[in-house]
Amino acid sequence: MPQTDAPRSAFDAATAVTSTDGGGLTARLDPGWDVGPGILNGGYLLAVVARAALTASPHAHPVALAASFLRATPPGPATLTLTPGPAGRTLAHSSVLLAGAEGPSLAVQVTTATLTDEPPVYSAAIPPDATPVADCLPPVDDGALPHPLPEVGLRTRVHTRLDPVTAGWARGRPGGEPYLRGWVRLADGREPDPLALLLFADVLPPTSWATGRFGWAPTVQLQVLVRALPAPGWCLVEARANEVAGGWLDEDYRIWDSTGRLVAQSRQLARLPR
Amino acid sequence: MPQTDAPRSAFDAATAVTSTDGGGLTARLDPGWDVGPGILNGGYLLAVVARAALTASPHAHPVALAASFLRATPPGPATLTLTPGPAGRTLAHSSVLLAGAEGPSLAVQVTTATLTDEPPVYSAAIPPDATPVADCLPPVDDGALPHPLPEVGLRTRVHTRLDPVTAGWARGRPGGEPYLRGWVRLADGREPDPLALLLFADVLPPTSWATGRFGWAPTVQLQVLVRALPAPGWCLVEARANEVAGGWLDEDYRIWDSTGRLVAQSRQLARLPR
Repeated sequence: MPQTDAPRSAFDAATAVTSTDGGGLTARLDPGWDVGPGILNGGYLLAVVARAALTASPHAHPVALAASFLRATPPGPATLTLTPGPAGRTLAHSSVLLAGAEGPSLAVQVTTATLTDEPPVYSAAIPPDATPVADCLPPVDDGALPHPLPEVGLRTRVHTRLDPVTAGWARGRPGGEPYLRGWVRLADGREPDPLALLLFADVLPPTSWATGRFGWAPTVQLQVLVRALPAPGWCLVEARANEVAGGWLDEDYRIWDSTGRLVAQSRQLARLPR
Repeated sequence: MPQTDAPRSAFDAATAVTSTDGGGLTARLDPGWDVGPGILNGGYLLAVVARAALTASPHAHPVALAASFLRATPPGPATLTLTPGPAGRTLAHSSVLLAGAEGPSLAVQVTTATLTDEPPVYSAAIPPDATPVADCLPPVDDGALPHPLPEVGLRTRVHTRLDPVTAGWARGRPGGEPYLRGWVRLADGREPDPLALLLFADVLPPTSWATGRFGWAPTVQLQVLVRALPAPGWCLVEARANEVAGGWLDEDYRIWDSTGRLVAQSRQLARLPR
């Protein structure tokens, strides 16, 4: 149980939703979770949407979210229109439509359930042999890298330690594989949970950066599956594009907790950076 | 162009949607596309939903569908409620709610666009070294197998030739890996297109069958990405579960056309067979 006198986590505050007198839900989208001027991170928005879905669910956790990114969502006041679907003992469905100042921007199918940390009966998702956190790229630009991670809001909210094995591009030596991995945790010290895993499911730069293409790859549709309650500590996040064709790319994420347990998977379809 | 005197494909007929006078859309769900008594195949339903989305899109093809399976959809009359989203030169978004006799059963986020067969600029999705079609399992039960594919409607609509390398279970020798692959094509002779790929994205038995667990694994949420226009001929379909835990499993599909080109990917979260 959290101590009642503990300072509220920045992540919890920035993803909070509020019930209105009319029975609706609102949020105040925090400009600090951006990945570029006025562009909020998709995973951050999913965490807000999941909180809205949980307000009407008998279950405690998001287990599957599928989101269409209709248009960019600006920071500021937003409304969440929640349409509950069937709810049972095992799981509950709902749809959530997030609308910012410029209209509906994110349409999401949500499934909630109650996750556990009971061990898998089968797992083929072995974590990669990643470089230890202490030997990864520095969390902030210390001037040593020709192409550091941009100092966008998201990087000050999520400590991101890229594995140097997949970050040749940061040293001016991009590779041939659209593959990135790194360790992440919330900068506010809050331990990971299913809501934080939604954030982590879109937390790395576009995989095209690994090949030296540094544009922004706008997400078109993103599915995230949360598979277990994560243990405290750093999460290892891996992102890989499997196919780049016709102006489209997919990005597959796998996330393991500090014990090496697979805790989330995501797949997005995105447009190729120009 | 199809010849105007060609007999209509059974798949096209079974997935047709009709505009009503009131501006709505209806379909007549064909009981022949079942995977068990009264249970229609999820991929078949997605093809119907995609046709509904295309009626209001400036684009020709489904490229991303994400569906929440709210409850089983019975055969018979169904309505499709289409909510168009933003539409542009590159892509269009919409939401479709499918309702059968028992109420809303499938809530889907759809993205449409116009696909090509231009070669990929990057691909890491190399097709597996599958057994040639002629040496695969027989398409119908010839009495030689202790556990053949059940003769459900879907198998008479889709020719399914399982690779014996992944079908030890059919011979009474299940393996340890939840992995299946096989060749598929429409029984009506119609060549594959993006709508058929939606069908193929959920066409194999549950991957748990490979390990000797023969129950039904109900889909909770399914995302399908269509990546290119498929060439004529057989498609190779591969399904793999990565993690089975807490009563949940994921199933990842990859589909290649007859030239070995990756043409679709899907991922579903399902409940474990009892």
